[in-house]
Amino acid sequence: MVHELTTSAQFQNLLDSKDNLLFDCDGVVWEGDSLIPNVDKVLKHFRALGKRIWFVTNNATKSRASNKAKFDKMGIQCEVDEIFSSAYASAAYLKNVLNFPADKKVYVIGEKGVEEELESVGIKYSGGTAPEDNVFIDLMDFSSITADPEVGAVLCGLDMHINYKKIARGFRYLRENQVRPGEPCLFVATNLDSTFPTHGSVYPGGGATTAALMYCAGKEPITVGKPEKAMLDSIVETYNLDKSRTLMIGDRLNTDILFGVNGGIDTLLVLTGINQKADYEVENPVAVPTYVVNSLGDFAVLADKA
Amino acid sequence: MVHELTTSAQFQNLLDSKDNLLFDCDGVVWEGDSLIPNVDKVLKHFRALGKRIWFVTNNATKSRASNKAKFDKMGIQCEVDEIFSSAYASAAYLKNVLNFPADKKVYVIGEKGVEEELESVGIKYSGGTAPEDNVFIDLMDFSSITADPEVGAVLCGLDMHINYKKIARGFRYLRENQVRPGEPCLFVATNLDSTFPTHGSVYPGGGATTAALMYCAGKEPITVGKPEKAMLDSIVETYNLDKSRTLMIGDRLNTDILFGVNGGIDTLLVLTGINQKADYEVENPVAVPTYVVNSLGDFAVLADKA
Repeated sequence: MVHELTTSAQFQNLLDSKDNLLFDCDGVVWEGDSLIPNVDKVLKHFRALGKRIWFVTNNATKSRASNKAKFDKMGIQCEVDEIFSSAYASAAYLKNVLNFPADKKVYVIGEKGVEEELESVGIKYSGGTAPEDNVFIDLMDFSSITADPEVGAVLCGLDMHINYKKIARGFRYLRENQVRPGEPCLFVATNLDSTFPTHGSVYPGGGATTAALMYCAGKEPITVGKPEKAMLDSIVETYNLDKSRTLMIGDRLNTDILFGVNGGIDTLLVLTGINQKADYEVENPVAVPTYVVNSLGDFAVLADKA
Repeated sequence: MVHELTTSAQFQNLLDSKDNLLFDCDGVVWEGDSLIPNVDKVLKHFRALGKRIWFVTNNATKSRASNKAKFDKMGIQCEVDEIFSSAYASAAYLKNVLNFPADKKVYVIGEKGVEEELESVGIKYSGGTAPEDNVFIDLMDFSSITADPEVGAVLCGLDMHINYKKIARGFRYLRENQVRPGEPCLFVATNLDSTFPTHGSVYPGGGATTAALMYCAGKEPITVGKPEKAMLDSIVETYNLDKSRTLMIGDRLNTDILFGVNGGIDTLLVLTGINQKADYEVENPVAVPTYVVNSLGDFAVLADKA
């Protein structure tokens, strides 16, 4: 039974029951470069009520610093350590959980955000935005798909410069390389989102630009971003949160809402992004939210009253 | 029970039982640009014995005419109508089986071979090798992912110029377009090979460069190439072949051998390409050949005796 929130009393009741609010960004706070109406006012009101806020985004094209710049530009208060992006979480996961060796390199199929976060935790990398990896190779010319025994992991995120050379290099490393003697090259994905919403439409996401490598290698990556619970566990542990007083707010059933379900916290679906009510009203939905509201901006009615 | 062929008597017995020989090319006849030793002599001997020969290849980067040029260069006799490539078969399938409308266009994610075969059957196309589709777009700049209501199908094959713009355009057409009123845009793949062998290694295949679109669209294409039986049915019907006197010869269990199994003909696995004996000696192998031989070149012993 999904609770549909439409009245200010319902909005207030939900807020009274939660101290910690985790927000997805795309489709919740903004849509591409446009703020969802009234969300700035709503977030300010939540802060005024003393709510703790984190932004949990699968967007791996930007570092946390670049993400903050977007919040700044949109006039929304946000500190760097309130941002948990899948790029940062992946770098931290490689470093802290997978104990990635200091003498090895990560081969990046992804954007600058991934590179910056690897740098921030002191991990060496190749690929990514390097000019030599952002080219089209001639048909059947494999001369540039050279070996690099230093590569110990392939890390994939949304890459709008995905190309055959990157796929073939990643494939070669996954087949031939080792992260440590006897341990095969690691395969990690920031997220496996099939699409993401922006500019009034949806476009192929990080899962799509990772899928080519998954398909030829016949391997599934370790996935750090939503809906996997690595990021949620990290936030809950770092900040010692009471899960019963924590709410995940998102627009996608198969990432945001499933992330909350997997992590054992309540969830709020907003209808300003990918999914609509019909998507969970089917037989065997991918995930069912605890609450649903048309838009995060609808909470503005509370700010107007305050 | 797989019959392992090692003696010239075994080679002769197999040949005596078959009139029609279907050959895969990569890993059987050649490996990249190198002929498998003695295969030229073997094929000449088969022709001298009056065997009918077809080359059945998932390689969609070349048209049949370009494929023939490769045979010519390698000094192997071959007529254009002895070549069934997945590019040609896909074009013919769109035209004859799917009745692709004359006023619609196919969006190509693939190489020149696909374009040439579409041309050969009179189907209009866009994408493919067009310069505007072979570029990297800037991060989050979707301005060039424009609508084109004329597109009624997306046809994918191995594309060494795969890029985000092609994936995003293909995705848009699959979501928005129709092939006929009320019928969604068609999604066809020349083949879904995960890899292909060349230059002494293996590289990502047509399935890998199609996987990105499959993943974001959440759709499986109609697949024309091996192991689907469309090409086999077409050859058997066109040439009125006796299936019991027909043999498929290939190096891959999951394409060539499964193609023969799906089509109800005997198969011969050669060990000069992707798969080895250990690959079918597992529990639940993807396909089991009728016969196995180290190399097609081993049949040269018969030519030497003749």
